[in-house]
Amino acid sequence: MGKIEKKTVKEKIILGLDPGTNIMGYGVITIRAGQLTLNQFGVINMGKQGEHALKLKKIFERVLALVDEYKPDEVALEAPFFGKNVQSMLKLGRAQGVAMSAALYREIPITEYAPKKVKQSVTGNGNASKEQVARMLMQIFSIRQMPKLFDSTDALAVAVCHHYQNGITKLKAKSWEGFLKENPNRIQ
Amino acid sequence: MGKIEKKTVKEKIILGLDPGTNIMGYGVITIRAGQLTLNQFGVINMGKQGEHALKLKKIFERVLALVDEYKPDEVALEAPFFGKNVQSMLKLGRAQGVAMSAALYREIPITEYAPKKVKQSVTGNGNASKEQVARMLMQIFSIRQMPKLFDSTDALAVAVCHHYQNGITKLKAKSWEGFLKENPNRIQ
Repeated sequence: MGKIEKKTVKEKIILGLDPGTNIMGYGVITIRAGQLTLNQFGVINMGKQGEHALKLKKIFERVLALVDEYKPDEVALEAPFFGKNVQSMLKLGRAQGVAMSAALYREIPITEYAPKKVKQSVTGNGNASKEQVARMLMQIFSIRQMPKLFDSTDALAVAVCHHYQNGITKLKAKSWEGFLKENPNRIQ
Repeated sequence: MGKIEKKTVKEKIILGLDPGTNIMGYGVITIRAGQLTLNQFGVINMGKQGEHALKLKKIFERVLALVDEYKPDEVALEAPFFGKNVQSMLKLGRAQGVAMSAALYREIPITEYAPKKVKQSVTGNGNASKEQVARMLMQIFSIRQMPKLFDSTDALAVAVCHHYQNGITKLKAKSWEGFLKENPNRIQ
């Protein structure tokens, strides 16, 4: 009796998220035999008006929908750890928490990256502009048209960064303490 | 043909939450014909150690479990809008966002109250101590023993506050803007 062996190429799907209070960017990529392909990227627009709770609800629902549609193995989150004031950070923290909930609910590990780390990883320059990041991604994924909102390319960038950073090593959600330790310059 | 009419007393169940990064207090009360009864109150301890993402996961799971067990009609959230620094507010925002997600996921409306409002509503004094709040609640619900952690009584207090504040009027989640407008003194 012969056993039929199928050649299976190991795939990994990464969902990158750049959660904001009004706009959340997302990008889904697949890594297959070291090759990166783009599944989808875009923005979820919560609008500037409207109730805060409804915006959070929309974030949760849309992230859960993305998770259920693409079934990512890992989620990468762009997470700035600084801000103008405590109110804006509380709002941002809520948006992040809600986006993270959808991934946590489906037991998908989350890794966080500071914006500077993402820029460094994707372009080689931690101070690169959002446009420079977008241009590099357009090259990697053969995207023809410059996206209107950089939130989408920022999210795509964090997914790519995650692949570059931890593609080979075993992944686990980084601890807050670890993040702060590794990113002392992000702390005010 | 006779129609059997059952006398049904309208009930409302309120889940009060006091989300923190390490400890989250919760309290469930039932309002029946103007009478308040205590269903449950306590704390969810995330522990001081451990990964940040795992703590958030625990918050989400435990709040969802509370929501599914008690099926509250409304959720009341104690939400301070000030803090020591942006990092602590981001962490608190995440904890709040995750706790809110579980309620939003089940389509339960959330109302937020500033700590001062809760104290004012329950004890008549916006500057009451946590112990004073706890003592008032012990009286209302005939609780014999002073709880060890005031997080649980704080959560219970916000549920009671919500009943006192909006028990009669139609409820809806307050907008962030509305909150800030009504609580100018909570803004740094």
